[in-house]
Amino acid sequence: MDINGRTHVFVHLAYPSAHLRTPQLFNARCIERGVDAVLVPWQVQPENLAQVLDALRLSESVPGMIVTIPHKEAVAALCDRLEGPASELGVANVVRKDPDGALVGRILDGEGFVGGLMHAGHDPRGRKALLIGAGGVSIAIADALLGAGVGELSIANRTPERAQRLVDRLLERYPGHAVRVGPADASGFDLIINGTALGMNPSDALPVAPRTIAAGSVVAEVVMAPAMTPLLDAASERGAFIHEGVHMLTGQIDPFIDFVLGDRAAQRRTA
Amino acid sequence: MDINGRTHVFVHLAYPSAHLRTPQLFNARCIERGVDAVLVPWQVQPENLAQVLDALRLSESVPGMIVTIPHKEAVAALCDRLEGPASELGVANVVRKDPDGALVGRILDGEGFVGGLMHAGHDPRGRKALLIGAGGVSIAIADALLGAGVGELSIANRTPERAQRLVDRLLERYPGHAVRVGPADASGFDLIINGTALGMNPSDALPVAPRTIAAGSVVAEVVMAPAMTPLLDAASERGAFIHEGVHMLTGQIDPFIDFVLGDRAAQRRTA
Repeated sequence: MDINGRTHVFVHLAYPSAHLRTPQLFNARCIERGVDAVLVPWQVQPENLAQVLDALRLSESVPGMIVTIPHKEAVAALCDRLEGPASELGVANVVRKDPDGALVGRILDGEGFVGGLMHAGHDPRGRKALLIGAGGVSIAIADALLGAGVGELSIANRTPERAQRLVDRLLERYPGHAVRVGPADASGFDLIINGTALGMNPSDALPVAPRTIAAGSVVAEVVMAPAMTPLLDAASERGAFIHEGVHMLTGQIDPFIDFVLGDRAAQRRTA
Repeated sequence: MDINGRTHVFVHLAYPSAHLRTPQLFNARCIERGVDAVLVPWQVQPENLAQVLDALRLSESVPGMIVTIPHKEAVAALCDRLEGPASELGVANVVRKDPDGALVGRILDGEGFVGGLMHAGHDPRGRKALLIGAGGVSIAIADALLGAGVGELSIANRTPERAQRLVDRLLERYPGHAVRVGPADASGFDLIINGTALGMNPSDALPVAPRTIAAGSVVAEVVMAPAMTPLLDAASERGAFIHEGVHMLTGQIDPFIDFVLGDRAAQRRTA
């Protein structure tokens, strides 16, 4: 990692930032591809986000940002333009600065998650999927699962009204699909996804009762630290395939680099 | 260089930033010392500096900044507090964010420059010094030379009034010292310092006429790119000792890390 005066500096907006794993993965990939860019953590409290984002427009070494909890919805609202599902879903996890200064937001969580699943041999096409959570990352995953041809999708959320709002929005984009609100019960599903933060803290409740998980189903996480959550441990004991949260991240590093830098990604380090 | 979510992110404020050499030197030194910090370029136009600096106060991953051309005087004016010569001289090249959010500015160019000279065996004590330039970096160097006991100091500047203002300020801090405004002529001097940007561009005039440089004198640069400026080339041909601009930088990396991080510099990377 040889940072010089021309290096593209990406910032990772988060609060808090201590748990981030993206900088390691992103920077290793830049070295591998020879891209002259670096990703650094950028811890910002929600009430300061708008001011920090405005100043990042003026920081010319910064061509784009990665956005995570709790900023994804706020950043989407602050972007000048949203592309892809971000525009319907009102969340963004990546931002590109265009030459005219405009901020263009996209959400790559969903395509990163589905890409990771497919890379691991778990094509979601035709599956019966249970998604726990209806917040930022769940919104993107739900959209990408429908785009990838999932057979049916049930969304469970502590606040059912929020799940219903998500279902309504998804049905606007995918009319006639089998999407509904349901309980956090894995019985009858062969793809179970935790899209909440449950599992980050040892005292967290399990997002779904393990006794409802069938052997041979796929249980996937969005939680990245710890890599093996209590849910994955329990799913493994039940004979399910487990799919760690990190795959959602690794699946979107290349799409992010290409989205922000385009042709500039091919320019090698000059130092 | 293993950047994680807890890594301290230092930004290097500059315009333009492409020529910066500090990130390479700083980051190599952090790895050597095991300090969990990274320095990234941060190109900002002068008219946007105040807004960017305000947002850096709110960017919690950033404990401090390095400041270079053309921002050193503007940053000093925007700091909440200046320490050391910075307070008298009105320039800052490093900034620390205190826990209460205050920005504390210092100038380390002078002590870096003198430390570099002494490390190379050229103690300025008692020497007859000619300094070309009366801007930001020259102000700090002049102050540090007087602090290190230089015998006499003559300051040459394209605008003599600016040199006179610097001489007046220096005499307030060092009353009775042999400091004066003079021509850009090295005759009679045994320490000649280019404190201007002349030499960065191939078409630049020489800051001082080489025929006035005596064999055995020390000719020092603040220009870092190219490492061998036309002035150093000419001085070398005249039999002078040459001292490259980079030494001013390497001499202040450790003082900067300790100024900003204090005890936190001893905390090892955790990733």
